Amino acid sequence: MNVEIINIGDELLIGQIINTNCSYMSKILNDNGVDVKYITVIGDKENEIEDSIKLALQRADCILITGGLGPTKDDVTKNCLNKMVGGKLIENKEVSEHVKSFFVKRGLPYTETNHSQAFVPERCQVIFNPIGTAPGMLFNIDNKLVFSMPGVPFEMERMMKSVVPIILSHYKPIAIIHKNIIVSGIGESFLSDMLEGFEKDVNKYNQDNKTNHFSLAYLPKAGIITLRLSARGQDREELQQQMNVFLTQLKQTIQEYVVGEDNDNIATIIGKILTKREQTLSTAESCTGGNVAHLITINSGASQYFKGSVVSYCNEIKNKVLSVNQDTLNTYGAVSEQTVIQMAKGAISVFNTDYAVSTTGIAGPNTDQTKTDVGTLFVCAMDNKGHYLTNTCQYTTSRENFIDRATNNVLFLLLELIKKER
Amino acid sequence: MNVEIINIGDELLIGQIINTNCSYMSKILNDNGVDVKYITVIGDKENEIEDSIKLALQRADCILITGGLGPTKDDVTKNCLNKMVGGKLIENKEVSEHVKSFFVKRGLPYTETNHSQAFVPERCQVIFNPIGTAPGMLFNIDNKLVFSMPGVPFEMERMMKSVVPIILSHYKPIAIIHKNIIVSGIGESFLSDMLEGFEKDVNKYNQDNKTNHFSLAYLPKAGIITLRLSARGQDREELQQQMNVFLTQLKQTIQEYVVGEDNDNIATIIGKILTKREQTLSTAESCTGGNVAHLITINSGASQYFKGSVVSYCNEIKNKVLSVNQDTLNTYGAVSEQTVIQMAKGAISVFNTDYAVSTTGIAGPNTDQTKTDVGTLFVCAMDNKGHYLTNTCQYTTSRENFIDRATNNVLFLLLELIKKER
Repeated sequence: MNVEIINIGDELLIGQIINTNCSYMSKILNDNGVDVKYITVIGDKENEIEDSIKLALQRADCILITGGLGPTKDDVTKNCLNKMVGGKLIENKEVSEHVKSFFVKRGLPYTETNHSQAFVPERCQVIFNPIGTAPGMLFNIDNKLVFSMPGVPFEMERMMKSVVPIILSHYKPIAIIHKNIIVSGIGESFLSDMLEGFEKDVNKYNQDNKTNHFSLAYLPKAGIITLRLSARGQDREELQQQMNVFLTQLKQTIQEYVVGEDNDNIATIIGKILTKREQTLSTAESCTGGNVAHLITINSGASQYFKGSVVSYCNEIKNKVLSVNQDTLNTYGAVSEQTVIQMAKGAISVFNTDYAVSTTGIAGPNTDQTKTDVGTLFVCAMDNKGHYLTNTCQYTTSRENFIDRATNNVLFLLLELIKKER
Repeated sequence: MNVEIINIGDELLIGQIINTNCSYMSKILNDNGVDVKYITVIGDKENEIEDSIKLALQRADCILITGGLGPTKDDVTKNCLNKMVGGKLIENKEVSEHVKSFFVKRGLPYTETNHSQAFVPERCQVIFNPIGTAPGMLFNIDNKLVFSMPGVPFEMERMMKSVVPIILSHYKPIAIIHKNIIVSGIGESFLSDMLEGFEKDVNKYNQDNKTNHFSLAYLPKAGIITLRLSARGQDREELQQQMNVFLTQLKQTIQEYVVGEDNDNIATIIGKILTKREQTLSTAESCTGGNVAHLITINSGASQYFKGSVVSYCNEIKNKVLSVNQDTLNTYGAVSEQTVIQMAKGAISVFNTDYAVSTTGIAGPNTDQTKTDVGTLFVCAMDNKGHYLTNTCQYTTSRENFIDRATNNVLFLLLELIKKER
């Protein structure tokens, strides 16, 4: 069975917001053995919504729609769907009670506009929305399930808990297994050459075995490549056994480049090593402004090895809290190799950690009083014995991207240092 | 003229990565007076790619494709396009020189797989990729422009600099103006009621004026609503004049709720106020792990008002650096109102700022030694005269979402405090 996702909203077509709904929905569906074949994004226009649903009915078995269900005049999805199935909008008592209590609880009036949320197409089954005022709806069109959900990510995510069981009760899911191997220190084309034999073996298996299918994908991103081995079939156990065989072969072939698995990223890879060694980490951040700490602490279990960060966004703090020498700041400036080394040293001292990383630079778009070039970066990774590595770069990019790259840069430097030491 | 974007990649259909390419492309095109009408996301399968391009040729004037151009076996876009236009793949000398020097410069061998990147369909015009090995391609199919670009965001973004001028030289752009008004402290439905008269005026204008069209959209998100007024027409100056008229009316109608404009978010709104008042801010973060500092420092000009952060991911640092009383930590615990207040006080003292915010909580999925409930949050916003506001919440959500919400929560609390004081 194939699902098509239709995300509705003018904001998606003018680049005002990033569409995170489709990736969330795809992941949940895939985890449940359901493949998404198409994602379509369209604006809040009735004729385009209708055309897209009609097209999706031709090429998919089940359609999941988000967006256009708010109480305001730019939201047209409900009326459009109602027109497609015919009939009128009727008040749903459960929804109107819920919407009413939603406003009463907050001491707000229950207006006509609020009340309009409780009116739903008579030919739909309501999917209750406990955390918002727009109900979800399930339609049966041409014997296919068509779901309509709010576009607010938080409400959609909650509603998927109701939607997935309905899909699984109507369609037979297949077995889907994805396994990621994270690789660093080798380019995509060289990896591809190394894996030629492996890929031939996978192809041969696919030809010999008609029910199971394996595929390998390469996803390069900022210093690492994620190799994704995907398997689809009927028998999960059989599929898992073969997956294990292929994984062993894959890892053996490129073992010197493997740094992690599954959802690992540079921060989790470092976290696993430090947790295993019972070692600790702190950060001293200037230009990354807390993003290194954020990337580390977004992972559960971070408190096992991460003790904290000093974000020193001014010279006083570099001196006062991180003990960067005032002479160093005067002579070499805040954006210098000398400063970044002392910042790392300061973090190790303040937090009493085994390792520290530090960053200083000019994220831009404007430079500081010293007129250092925008895009200049110095990073340092240090251990508590005083061993350290530094790196300097000159980026030509946006402020946001500079911060991202600087964060990756210093974490890769730390990984290099950590690996050297065991 | 209408553009369709087609993003190719299995990783987009299984939710492995978030599709940021389409929003970037849409925004750049819109800024240049070109509307995107459809976005289609499909997997790396030749027949689906072909079907999607054929469909796009029916409903759009120009097609922008990303993805599937790498040197590995899962990338099939180039072959698929070549089959559609007919002819063979030929070596492009400029590309092969570039790809070769790309590897030679890095001291890497130039292999057969690398060399394959230089082969392009003979019936395409190459769009040079200075920062990667996969060239872009421009095809003319049914007298429509069909662009194929790499899916790596960084490379695609660079290539759009070449693509946009080609589009503008073939099609006549229109005038498009978007203006955002950021509103806080009122629900979507109440806002809609307040703006009933305004929306009628907009509709009347649209009916009376056939060349210009205005529309209003509501985008609610975590405590704020972005009102987007969009205008499309032929004459930019005339459009801008009418936009100003509507903007004045809109702001007057809801003035007590307006907190910002354009790309403002809670962090930039606070930043503008503090810059204007020449006041400063610091943060003391436990559960948000540096994300509050990150959200502040991602905005250019942050160094004007932001002095730094202490991320105290362990009790020692709360005590040692932020001077949280050891008795308080022992009696009430690190996750308590008492601790969060002292953290804010500590930050004001360390950084010598006018304001500080602090966070402590259990982001989960596991709790700490004190067995405080996962999802518990305490936040505080304080000024340097000792006035403060606190807030506590209990969230049932993912670690990532908890951190996001905690960050928004404390920044809204700060805005409340800041607004009280002037």
